[in-house]
Formats: sequence, C-alpha cells, structure tokens
Amino acid sequence: MIPRYIALEGVEGAGKSTVIRALADRLHQAGEAVVVVREPGGTPIGEEIRRMLLHAEGMSEWAEVALFAASRAELVRQVVYPALEKGAVVLSDRSYYSSLAYQGGGRGLGIPEVREINERVLGGIEPHLVVVLRVDPEVGFARETGRDRIGGEGIDFQRAVAHSYTRLAAEDPRVVIVDAERPVDEVVDEVMAMVVER
Amino acid sequence: MIPRYIALEGVEGAGKSTVIRALADRLHQAGEAVVVVREPGGTPIGEEIRRMLLHAEGMSEWAEVALFAASRAELVRQVVYPALEKGAVVLSDRSYYSSLAYQGGGRGLGIPEVREINERVLGGIEPHLVVVLRVDPEVGFARETGRDRIGGEGIDFQRAVAHSYTRLAAEDPRVVIVDAERPVDEVVDEVMAMVVER
Repeated sequence: MIPRYIALEGVEGAGKSTVIRALADRLHQAGEAVVVVREPGGTPIGEEIRRMLLHAEGMSEWAEVALFAASRAELVRQVVYPALEKGAVVLSDRSYYSSLAYQGGGRGLGIPEVREINERVLGGIEPHLVVVLRVDPEVGFARETGRDRIGGEGIDFQRAVAHSYTRLAAEDPRVVIVDAERPVDEVVDEVMAMVVER
Repeated sequence: MIPRYIALEGVEGAGKSTVIRALADRLHQAGEAVVVVREPGGTPIGEEIRRMLLHAEGMSEWAEVALFAASRAELVRQVVYPALEKGAVVLSDRSYYSSLAYQGGGRGLGIPEVREINERVLGGIEPHLVVVLRVDPEVGFARETGRDRIGGEGIDFQRAVAHSYTRLAAEDPRVVIVDAERPVDEVVDEVMAMVVER
C-alpha cells in the first residue's frame, strides 16, 4: 500500500524540488496519478500568504506560525484532500513538519506548541510519510542561491533546523531521514523503495 | 485603576466605532493617552490580511481562524504592547473575542478550540476588559450597510454570534455586556463608569 500523501522536507539546498520531480516521474511510470504541491502556497490565498511570508521584514514569530498554518489549512482542504479522494498520490514540497523544524525548533517557539496549532487547523489531513532529505547544513546553504527571508537566516539557524528534523525522526514513525548528499538517482531509488514498501 | 487594554465587541451594526470615538474623547479629556486600533489590521501585514479576510470567497474556516490570529499576533506585539508600556490606554475595535464569537460560535468551530490557538499566538497580551455592545441582531443587521464577506453571512449567523457573546459574558469575568440600543451618550456613560470603576 503506497502512502498517498508524502511530504519532502529538509534544510535549504537539500534538493527537495529535484527529488520531487524525479519521484513524480517514477510514480507516473508506475501508473499512479500524481499531484505536486508546495508550501506555503498552492491556492490563491496561499500564494498571497507565501509572498507575505517570504518578504515581510520584522514579522513577529507567532504571526509567521499562524500564516504558515493558514496557507496549509487552505491547501489541504482545497487541493490535497480532493486529490487523495480521487486516488492520486500527493507529493508536497514541505508540510507542517517544516513549521515544527523551522518555527518550533529553529526559532525556539517549541515543537509541541507549533504542532498544537497545526493539528488543530489541519483537522487530520496530515502526511502519511515525511521524507527528510539530509545534507550537511553548510553544504545545503552553499548550494542554495536566491534566498528568501527565512532561507536567509544564516547558518546557525539552518543547523538548528537540521537538528530539529533529527529529533522529529527519532520521535515520530512517519518521519524518515534519507542521505541526500548522493546522486539524485540514488536518493530517488531509496525514497521509491520506502514508498512502495509501506 | 483603569484597565489599559479595552476591547469593544458586538455584532455588525452594534455601533462599536461610534462608541470608540466618543470613549477616546472622554479618556483624552481625563488626561489619558489613548491608542485606537482595529482588528483585523493595524499593521502593514495586518492590513494585507484584512483585505484577504474581508474579500476572499470560499476560504476554509480554519484558514480564516489562522489569518485572524496572525493579524492579531502582529498587532499586539507591534502596537498594543508598546503602547501599554508607554502608559497609554488601548481601545481595540474587536479582539480575539470576535474570533471566539464568530468562528468559534458562529461557524461552530468551538470556542475552546479557537481560544487555544489565540492564546498561543498572543502570548498573554490580552484585553483587560471586553465590552460587548448588545443590539438585537436584526436591528444591527438593518443598520449596517456596505457589508463585507463576514458581515454578509446573514441574520442566522448574526444571531449565533450574539448568542456566543452572551455565553462568553456568562463564563468570563473580563466580558461585560452593555445595552447599545440607546443614545450613544448613555452607552458611553455606562462604559466610562465601568472603565473608571475597575
């Protein structure tokens, strides 16, 4: 049984979008309908929120959490849930686990506190499998160009985020870590094996 | 001791803005510095959110809750808290009690559930006194012209909101109900007495 709602996670420059494209191709070849979404965004309201989140300087930390949650609430109800109902596999570039790692861990607001808000607004529409693409934060940070406000927080912040993903994987059976400092094909092989095996 | 952070609440057409203007005048005459804010809005991000909230059709209910909370988180940190620190009285046209009454009660999402999110993002910066201006929902609805998306939900929704305010007043000592189907001066007299007395 393929988990139908799969989130790709990781620090800046982990290669999520490349892996998602390759994964979507493989799933298509396997005869699956695939819907690819990204967070924040993916709905008209979500894209407006994305623009605000990535560029508004000086935003308060809890406003940031609430805006990500608002975008996500729209996305899961308008796009993810309808796609799952039609039998598609949903591949999501980030999910509420990004809020746990970035705002809960990276900004120090607390993973349980940020989880509480997200669980409330998502109403049970949550990823079945969360794949964290692990790269050394320095490597990822050097790869990534054109950083936005959150991606531009600096290397210490990226390290705190990476540490949070490791903690989440230790606590939560839905979260698996994949070494992403390898050729894309190898990474995609491992993720595909994991997807099919579940 | 004057409660320094005072929220005015009520259904559409209850006369909040008129009462707030008169109340601000009285407090000025009494030598107080007064800062008037409105929700959603009052900060650059909050005003963007306000525009989205009042006009976006088909928004999911929990996205609405999260957007109000985001606007509010910005407002309390950027405006309300700094004003209170300088000793001003803050008069707020709506507060998180609107989310409790409108989304929690009116939309049926649950007052405790909506309260949980708001308490989390506000971090303790909450109104000291919440004055609900009570008018018959039909009277208020007939008064109000130029309704936005939420104000345009119809009379049954306004009745559910009014009922929620009554429940909140019964449970929460910060919430008081004032009969607002009287001349504005009488309403303001009563609110001023309540403010000074506390």
